[in-house]
Amino acid sequence: MLRPTGALDRLDEVAAWLAEWQRTDRPAVEHPVATVFFGDHGVAADGVSAYPAAVTKTMLEAARAGVATVSAMTASLGADLHLVDVGVGAPTGNIRIEPALTPERFEACFAAGQEVVRSAAGDLLVLGEMGIGNTTAAAALCACLFDSPVAGWVGPGTGLDREGLAHKRRVVSQAVERVGPATPLQALRELGGTEFAALAGATLEARRRSIPVLLDGFVVTAAVMPLELARPGALEHCWPAHMSPEPGHRLLIEFLGRPPLLDLGMRLGEASGALTALGIVKLAAASVVEVATFDEWGVD
Amino acid sequence: MLRPTGALDRLDEVAAWLAEWQRTDRPAVEHPVATVFFGDHGVAADGVSAYPAAVTKTMLEAARAGVATVSAMTASLGADLHLVDVGVGAPTGNIRIEPALTPERFEACFAAGQEVVRSAAGDLLVLGEMGIGNTTAAAALCACLFDSPVAGWVGPGTGLDREGLAHKRRVVSQAVERVGPATPLQALRELGGTEFAALAGATLEARRRSIPVLLDGFVVTAAVMPLELARPGALEHCWPAHMSPEPGHRLLIEFLGRPPLLDLGMRLGEASGALTALGIVKLAAASVVEVATFDEWGVD
Repeated sequence: MLRPTGALDRLDEVAAWLAEWQRTDRPAVEHPVATVFFGDHGVAADGVSAYPAAVTKTMLEAARAGVATVSAMTASLGADLHLVDVGVGAPTGNIRIEPALTPERFEACFAAGQEVVRSAAGDLLVLGEMGIGNTTAAAALCACLFDSPVAGWVGPGTGLDREGLAHKRRVVSQAVERVGPATPLQALRELGGTEFAALAGATLEARRRSIPVLLDGFVVTAAVMPLELARPGALEHCWPAHMSPEPGHRLLIEFLGRPPLLDLGMRLGEASGALTALGIVKLAAASVVEVATFDEWGVD
Repeated sequence: MLRPTGALDRLDEVAAWLAEWQRTDRPAVEHPVATVFFGDHGVAADGVSAYPAAVTKTMLEAARAGVATVSAMTASLGADLHLVDVGVGAPTGNIRIEPALTPERFEACFAAGQEVVRSAAGDLLVLGEMGIGNTTAAAALCACLFDSPVAGWVGPGTGLDREGLAHKRRVVSQAVERVGPATPLQALRELGGTEFAALAGATLEARRRSIPVLLDGFVVTAAVMPLELARPGALEHCWPAHMSPEPGHRLLIEFLGRPPLLDLGMRLGEASGALTALGIVKLAAASVVEVATFDEWGVD
């Protein structure tokens, strides 16, 4: 390239990652597909969120009408957007007292995630989610997966105060104690939710098709983590797009060992962090494909 | 907005900044203009760079031919690109022993920067530079402006080794000692270069026209710093796009007090860091303009 070796640093790493999974020496982001899974959570009835459970449906409708943040971002980027209802209006079991999903429902949601990727691949998959109560589910899932103290995984989500946070921590603790030791996929079914299972399914299918994936925030990263724990290396096709202020997200990113592209304090979900990073991946590709080498340019 | 207050954090701050300078409640990045100033430096003859001085001209030609990193990035982004030769093949004085610019040349370069902004405004100005030896000039300028030890401002630039770095430090020290105390604009003329003067002129003209500016790395930020020191607040229309590994850049950004959008280890120049951040600014605008409020969407 017509620049000092390593001068683009992280951008060059991202371009190399993209090239590897796209199986080409001319990586490109021309047809990105953003897929956002929506689901309701029984645990929302315990008052673990600053927002009522009905907001999940409100946001799905707003996104469909093109007036949500994810709609504005995908429109601005020219990215395809798939809004997938895997459980809105049909909440999971309340994880504090019962499994989130039956085995049948878990498999159906996982398969729905796979199917979305089969039908709309694109050259880069952007994964997002929306579901009131789902940072509670994510915290419980992580505490179970890593067998580590609940407190490190519980954050304010959409904006809990101190008292709300203490309550959320108690609910998560009860859920984790209820399940006890579990395999990664058991933990996902017991403590995740419909959108969690779909996210895992989509990510597995992307791996089978060698499609690179940009992960959004804490919930997305938690949802796909069982794949990595079940088979180390299973998430090598995934790059964490950003670092959110949710404390558990930082732990997951450290575990994955790949530096996020952005650290802007974003904590919305709806794929918003991953969409904000999408332009960086696109430029990273252009910067290796469209730039001449010193040799080509006739310079020693 | 249909999201928790503050959920986009830095993006909301950027959108508010953009709206303020664009004087609208519907900020947008539809016609960004990237302007890159090229200039040669007499001090390059002292061997302060890992690359020979002739590379400045090579890179200007490569950019004009569309095969440089800045060309690839602006093409991918659909941004206008202005490549401005303010001193290629006509190096400045060697700052170690003499002023970089005569008063007449300084004014001509400053005016050239203003003129570019007058003729091609756009709704967001992206500023970049290229000039072998110019991190040496930037380090000397900063040490003089802030009357602080040289060592903190000198970094590896395009990739000096330890010995090269020690030599660069000595050259910078001699330049700073030669000048002694100086006003901000005197320091800019004595220690900067043709592209430095043009960058300052462009930034001042953007301020007069209330055009927001994305600053690239160490050299760009150093070049416009005399404006801030001469009149505090003069750079309020500027946002630092990224944090480079060049140590002086971090000091300048801390002084400005505005958090950079990216921290990806980029250290190329050519506006590459600012162009990588451009998409973030565009999405920030879309996320306030194109998203409904809870009120508009009929939700309490």
